[in-house]
Amino acid sequence: MAMEAEASSLLDSLSAVVVHGTPPLSVKWFSAERHGAELLVALNGRDRRFGVDSIGTDAAVLNTYAVIERFHPDVVVSAGTAGGWRRSGGEIGDVYVSDRHVVHHDRRIDLPGFSEYGIGRYPVLSLQNMAAQLGLKIGIVTTGNSLDESEPDRRMIMASGAVVKDMEAASVAYVCLQMSTPFVAVKAVTDLVDDHTPTAEQFNTNLTMASRRLSEELLRVIDWLIPRELAQLD
Amino acid sequence: MAMEAEASSLLDSLSAVVVHGTPPLSVKWFSAERHGAELLVALNGRDRRFGVDSIGTDAAVLNTYAVIERFHPDVVVSAGTAGGWRRSGGEIGDVYVSDRHVVHHDRRIDLPGFSEYGIGRYPVLSLQNMAAQLGLKIGIVTTGNSLDESEPDRRMIMASGAVVKDMEAASVAYVCLQMSTPFVAVKAVTDLVDDHTPTAEQFNTNLTMASRRLSEELLRVIDWLIPRELAQLD
Repeated sequence: MAMEAEASSLLDSLSAVVVHGTPPLSVKWFSAERHGAELLVALNGRDRRFGVDSIGTDAAVLNTYAVIERFHPDVVVSAGTAGGWRRSGGEIGDVYVSDRHVVHHDRRIDLPGFSEYGIGRYPVLSLQNMAAQLGLKIGIVTTGNSLDESEPDRRMIMASGAVVKDMEAASVAYVCLQMSTPFVAVKAVTDLVDDHTPTAEQFNTNLTMASRRLSEELLRVIDWLIPRELAQLD
Repeated sequence: MAMEAEASSLLDSLSAVVVHGTPPLSVKWFSAERHGAELLVALNGRDRRFGVDSIGTDAAVLNTYAVIERFHPDVVVSAGTAGGWRRSGGEIGDVYVSDRHVVHHDRRIDLPGFSEYGIGRYPVLSLQNMAAQLGLKIGIVTTGNSLDESEPDRRMIMASGAVVKDMEAASVAYVCLQMSTPFVAVKAVTDLVDDHTPTAEQFNTNLTMASRRLSEELLRVIDWLIPRELAQLD
């Protein structure tokens, strides 16, 4: 997870305790036990110079790699808040589970072979059954390092068919793929990209509510995953 | 370094030999000895799915972190090819040394405190004296994950005053800063962003020449750095 505000409700629900991180990285790790399973909630932590949460892909890559190296998790979940679209039926507070693959929308590399590399299309766990049982929406998640959606971003997103826009998932998935760790994204909608209200304003208004929704549904997802073997998931 | 073609001339000149990397990461590492100093040339390696060099920030973060963790280098150099601008006096084949700081131009985050975090402004080694002695250009390097320059990119670049555009430096510097490892970028110009010829076409035409220029000047930079203590550099 990237933001402390996104995680606080989850950490409370889990009665999670601090785990020693990997200094000098700014990561902030918490552990909890649930139905016999070990959970690690790994925040990217605060940036030392700017004092803000370390959002975006660079911090996500570092945190993911450090976690997988140390704990060898069975599954990595990129959880957080995100943007949705009215045109895809998205509503504030919706919780989406990633489907098919995750992509980047801000890596335009018009050289043979590199275009596809830039988009990424990293695989995700196939959880359609779970989503149907839990009543969660599913769709393609797309990642970029900007809160807004530029015109080139919009074109890439239209081409990928993505319905959720975040700032970390594809890069977490990139590390997971290299480390052969199964991956899924769970994202709660704070803002609608195609709404007339500016994204930053929607984000600030809805962050608390969406983080609570994220925590509720993430616990249901975790409880669904815990008793199952990876091979039976689909 | 991100691309094998950018590195091959340097690897030949150094008679570098393969070093075991950090599986399962795709990094490709080579070592060499020069004037009593140990050099490690760390390529991001080929992407297993797409068969292309792992350019861009995610692969750069992983490689940099893995190298620093393993080798604790005295200095990290982000070396490669890059774009320049006619308006800044850039010419194809120019080799630039990073000056003042490196920035991102594709991380627009319009939330209090996050705008500056997105831009990054990571410090670089102060090497004005070296650049003057070696006759190299200096300037602010800016990083983004796209080969082209979108309109929002252009606005961010105008605001930062950057004169060199690459796809890795700022993210390498981000990791170096967290690990307290001194950082500098050395970039050879393959294309002029404000030329009428498309960037991809210029890149393909000039990659071999710019990589040879990079190797020549990088060796001069390395030879200048080797006998000096970090504290005396400026």
